[in-house]
Amino acid sequence: MTRAGSVPELVTAARTGQVRAVARLISLVEDASPLLREAMAALAPYAGNAHVVGITGAPGVGKSTTTSALVRELRSRGQRVGVLAIDPSSPFSGGALLGDRVRMGDHATDAGVYIRSMASRGHLGGLSWATPQALRVLDAAGYDTVIVETVGVGQSEVEVAGLADSTIVLLAPGMGDGIQAAKAGILEIGDLYVVNKADRDGAAAVRRDLRSMLALADRAEGSWRPPVLTAVATKHEGLDEVVDKLEAHRAWLAESGAGTDRRRRRAREEVAAIAVTELRSRWDTLSGSVELDTLAEDVLAGRLDPYAAADALLAASD
Amino acid sequence: MTRAGSVPELVTAARTGQVRAVARLISLVEDASPLLREAMAALAPYAGNAHVVGITGAPGVGKSTTTSALVRELRSRGQRVGVLAIDPSSPFSGGALLGDRVRMGDHATDAGVYIRSMASRGHLGGLSWATPQALRVLDAAGYDTVIVETVGVGQSEVEVAGLADSTIVLLAPGMGDGIQAAKAGILEIGDLYVVNKADRDGAAAVRRDLRSMLALADRAEGSWRPPVLTAVATKHEGLDEVVDKLEAHRAWLAESGAGTDRRRRRAREEVAAIAVTELRSRWDTLSGSVELDTLAEDVLAGRLDPYAAADALLAASD
Repeated sequence: MTRAGSVPELVTAARTGQVRAVARLISLVEDASPLLREAMAALAPYAGNAHVVGITGAPGVGKSTTTSALVRELRSRGQRVGVLAIDPSSPFSGGALLGDRVRMGDHATDAGVYIRSMASRGHLGGLSWATPQALRVLDAAGYDTVIVETVGVGQSEVEVAGLADSTIVLLAPGMGDGIQAAKAGILEIGDLYVVNKADRDGAAAVRRDLRSMLALADRAEGSWRPPVLTAVATKHEGLDEVVDKLEAHRAWLAESGAGTDRRRRRAREEVAAIAVTELRSRWDTLSGSVELDTLAEDVLAGRLDPYAAADALLAASD
Repeated sequence: MTRAGSVPELVTAARTGQVRAVARLISLVEDASPLLREAMAALAPYAGNAHVVGITGAPGVGKSTTTSALVRELRSRGQRVGVLAIDPSSPFSGGALLGDRVRMGDHATDAGVYIRSMASRGHLGGLSWATPQALRVLDAAGYDTVIVETVGVGQSEVEVAGLADSTIVLLAPGMGDGIQAAKAGILEIGDLYVVNKADRDGAAAVRRDLRSMLALADRAEGSWRPPVLTAVATKHEGLDEVVDKLEAHRAWLAESGAGTDRRRRRAREEVAAIAVTELRSRWDTLSGSVELDTLAEDVLAGRLDPYAAADALLAASD
């Protein structure tokens, strides 16, 4: 493969299934490259077709294994699949790359699968800033399903739910999940609940507890009722039902109009995150600027009042 | 006195010593009034003459009493004196008004003294936003010395040092001050240290400890060496020396050029605080705007990329 140079070349290459072009476009996102703007503009017309699936859960529930099994199931149904594994605790993507190779084990020779780890902490706006743009790359490159996997730590599981069309919350027995679920507010964010490691003691209890907690939720007529499924990802058990329910949820999103609402909210947050980042960088430039020094001098001398000086400062940034 | 109506009338009245006009101008600051901008523009040419003295210290060291005694000493030397008492913990100025009356006891009939309590928490930018503007009112109204008194809690003592030409750090025996001083970083901010309640046990020890800690500081040739004085504010003892040292510090500020540096930094921070407040309010408007909804819709439809949408959003605010 020749190394594509310009952004239009990269976009064309990515859309014809060239994995290296996809990788380079996502690197533009990770690096907050000056070319990112041009790339997003070139990709925009092609985005909006992928089914974005979020997977979240506490450490140890088997997210990587389940993601890998889910990819295998989706591939068996003829889909092209992209995976973004987000590590909100890591400021570096270097460490995550080793993880990629481990993950890639099952899919390394499969051109229909693209897996990428992203570190989000180094970014100005964290998960909310970088992930939607990486999603747009995979979406425009023609992956049918894009999976966003994140560790359920802090706010990240809520953020991933905000990005996804369908959110899978993963649990496992022996982790006090019932209580964790209620605490972390995951009862509000799941479209599907999957109790992984279902061959272990306590899986039935986790499922039962979760079902009774979900039954307490006050859901409007016609709204989606999140199913609670079981799986043993290491043995590839239960994944067919997970994908069936994902497809059912996708159909419900389309019929009810809820899908468009979610995507509109996602677009709104993406635009807002970029605008805030831009405002912040303008401000960083201003607050260290010669203009501010000069204006302060004018205020000191009584030639300008501080409001007029602030106006002049802001005008210099517009 | 007739009630001055327009901003130019208020400014003229304040400059001819009418206390009510001064009070109304400071109320414009407290209320973040739409007239504030016009008032600051009208006051700007007259500001820059007052000696701004900050007084800070832990609760219980006798700040109000010392301020009152300092006012009396400055009055005896023929100065007009303004006092801003800042309470960073109070969101209301109402409660502070009672405190004013107590403070005013000694000076209630003296037209050469103006005392005002300000609550700072309610403001967008807190102390840093409102205080410099209230200072400008008193400065332009012709008060020779303006005292800013604040409780040494959190960051407020550092902020007051940033605003003042000369900062007095007040201590008292029996409060574990030596350790407190080192902890709070007040060793860096004082231009004068005053051990109040010097007739109590332990005052000499506080003075000695403080002096040895200050002696450890690495000061450049020609820099100011903060004196450690003693006072008994309730008996008006030691205040003459405090004012003598304040005058000496003022002279040093003028001769060394350090005074202009401090004022330039103050003007810089004031302009920056106003600009940040303005940016924040623009953003609040934008993030709840119809524009953002419309732009998100365009992004969703692939008509716009998120960067172009963010640009359009920001342009709508400029």
